[in-house]
Amino acid sequence: MYLAKIYVTYKPSILDPKGETVKDALHRMEYADVQDVVMGKYFEIKLDNSDVNQVAKEVEAFSQQLLINVNMEVFRYELEKIEG
Amino acid sequence: MYLAKIYVTYKPSILDPKGETVKDALHRMEYADVQDVVMGKYFEIKLDNSDVNQVAKEVEAFSQQLLINVNMEVFRYELEKIEG
Repeated sequence: MYLAKIYVTYKPSILDPKGETVKDALHRMEYADVQDVVMGKYFEIKLDNSDVNQVAKEVEAFSQQLLINVNMEVFRYELEKIEG
Repeated sequence: MYLAKIYVTYKPSILDPKGETVKDALHRMEYADVQDVVMGKYFEIKLDNSDVNQVAKEVEAFSQQLLINVNMEVFRYELEKIEG
């Protein structure tokens, strides 16, 4: 069994309105240290498969097909072997 | 300068409708290996401060105040020292 942790963020070229909104709010709350905020989606997906290569292939395929908007977003992932 | 990576997910006791929706979609796309899907928010926040303890205190404070719904969500974070 593997746990895939998938991080989805906007492409650098794309304006991140939610990130800007959070940054402005943090500045109004006087967190002046805050320089830059990127906000995205996070998935933890368990896969019942012991072949790490096949798991990687599946994660890359369904991330492109379902989890991200390929025109605006990029993703990275980590795989962790877990009990089960 | 530090980069805070913050992961926000529902409390285990809370139903995760988006996660369920993604799981059903993956099963319809014949990714039968998929057992469980948790969907949450992900933040990358740069802080212009060299004191890691102070950065940790700020991240914990503003995560509770702004980034999560304390009744339904939990968060964890990682701090990474970066150039700048």
